[in-house]
Amino acid sequence: MSGIQRLSLNQITTRGWTLAEAARGCADAGIPAIGLWRDKVAEAGGAARAAELVRDAGLVVSSLCRGGFFTAPLGSRARTAALDDNRSAIEEAAVLGTDTLVLVCGGLPEGSRDLPAARERVRDALAELAPFAGAHGVRLAVEPLHPMFCADRAVVSTLGQVLDLAEEFPVEQVGVVVDSYHVWWDPELYAQIARAGARIAAYQVCDWTLPLPADALLGRGHVGDGVIDFPPLSRAVAAAGYTGWIEVELFNQDVWDAPGERTLREVIERHLKHIAVS
Amino acid sequence: MSGIQRLSLNQITTRGWTLAEAARGCADAGIPAIGLWRDKVAEAGGAARAAELVRDAGLVVSSLCRGGFFTAPLGSRARTAALDDNRSAIEEAAVLGTDTLVLVCGGLPEGSRDLPAARERVRDALAELAPFAGAHGVRLAVEPLHPMFCADRAVVSTLGQVLDLAEEFPVEQVGVVVDSYHVWWDPELYAQIARAGARIAAYQVCDWTLPLPADALLGRGHVGDGVIDFPPLSRAVAAAGYTGWIEVELFNQDVWDAPGERTLREVIERHLKHIAVS
Repeated sequence: MSGIQRLSLNQITTRGWTLAEAARGCADAGIPAIGLWRDKVAEAGGAARAAELVRDAGLVVSSLCRGGFFTAPLGSRARTAALDDNRSAIEEAAVLGTDTLVLVCGGLPEGSRDLPAARERVRDALAELAPFAGAHGVRLAVEPLHPMFCADRAVVSTLGQVLDLAEEFPVEQVGVVVDSYHVWWDPELYAQIARAGARIAAYQVCDWTLPLPADALLGRGHVGDGVIDFPPLSRAVAAAGYTGWIEVELFNQDVWDAPGERTLREVIERHLKHIAVS
Repeated sequence: MSGIQRLSLNQITTRGWTLAEAARGCADAGIPAIGLWRDKVAEAGGAARAAELVRDAGLVVSSLCRGGFFTAPLGSRARTAALDDNRSAIEEAAVLGTDTLVLVCGGLPEGSRDLPAARERVRDALAELAPFAGAHGVRLAVEPLHPMFCADRAVVSTLGQVLDLAEEFPVEQVGVVVDSYHVWWDPELYAQIARAGARIAAYQVCDWTLPLPADALLGRGHVGDGVIDFPPLSRAVAAAGYTGWIEVELFNQDVWDAPGERTLREVIERHLKHIAVS
């Protein structure tokens, strides 16, 4: 459909659907791509079977969510397990035919207040994983998360901070995610998007709505329902050279409770109104 | 009492107390200073009477909370009212004998998504108010608020951003607040504290605790209950040259429900354990 050639559904948006249902839903709605989650891929029978389901629906996989969570202390069992798990995620992404593995880096380890050390371990993990990712044709897409998640989900909070990390590695191995929800407030946002250029591995959208819900994770609204000014943001991402997928990723209980077909109609309508016009 | 010479109680911490009760509570506990709120000052009979109550208790006023909220459109009635109200706040601070008026700048105006414009109006308001403040011996202490409050409370979110604004004005007219809760996550924090130097007008402390409560405003814990690493933060603020009050400011329903005397004992204990050691 005209105007949604670059639209992708991140499947968390239709959380109640299986991978097969989400793929069929996208195909029926004319959405050409889908961002997958590892738990849904596993549920579907693994990466090869999931790849087949997506291909049979005529879609492509825009990204895989997610690796990361590698801030456990060096030498700990938790860290070894995290790195092993990330290698599996890279292999799954390759089988799924996407070059983009989204990474949520992880918060402070239990009982720790040492933010600089946790950030250093993110760097170490990237150094360990980047060549492996590159060898699989997969790029690690590091996502800065909103600072309200700094303690428990991601010790990297701004695009500038993530670029400082990413730029230590080849551009085809480590990129960054621009997610409107996480970065919209940043006074440095436009400068850092311009700086990011070819490092932009994914552009994810959803809106910042008020009030924040009791579970701050679930406050993301449909594009247009909140305060984020999408046209200039989308133009900046385009001006930086990004021509890839625009993924709609909604964590929102009301959206999850709605029928998937209705959610997809809403997603398309908002995309045409607020994003495709940019 | 040794070790609490620089401790101040921001009176929101004992929200159930009147100004007179808070002043007496501090005096009894040996806390030498108090940060006042305008609604409590009004309740006490106005600035002159409040000044008397504080003086009679043998305390000094460390700051007045708060002015700001001046992002309404230029030329609007709301903006005129906000500027008038800020001038009143400056006059009250002078009567109270504090040189520090804390400013919370305000969020996006209702229905607006134009963050750059709202930020520009913060700058305009500072330009209008700074000389008036200076003439009253009061410094505007601009507080960056955590980015989760960007939409509804403060369109300025980082110390660097606030310093960019503050540096356009004389240092005795416009300073910045370093509040641990709002800035602890910032990857630029230590560099910006060093840059701030004599611009630091206030150092406020409380901790970031998890999970965030349903009302995100009320998530602040006693120093030591959360993830903020206070010794290096306090050392950085000291190294920047700040020798002023260290104000404990807790927005927390459990703390508000506790007897004030117990809260003050806790505040002192935490100060001695986590702050005074730095």
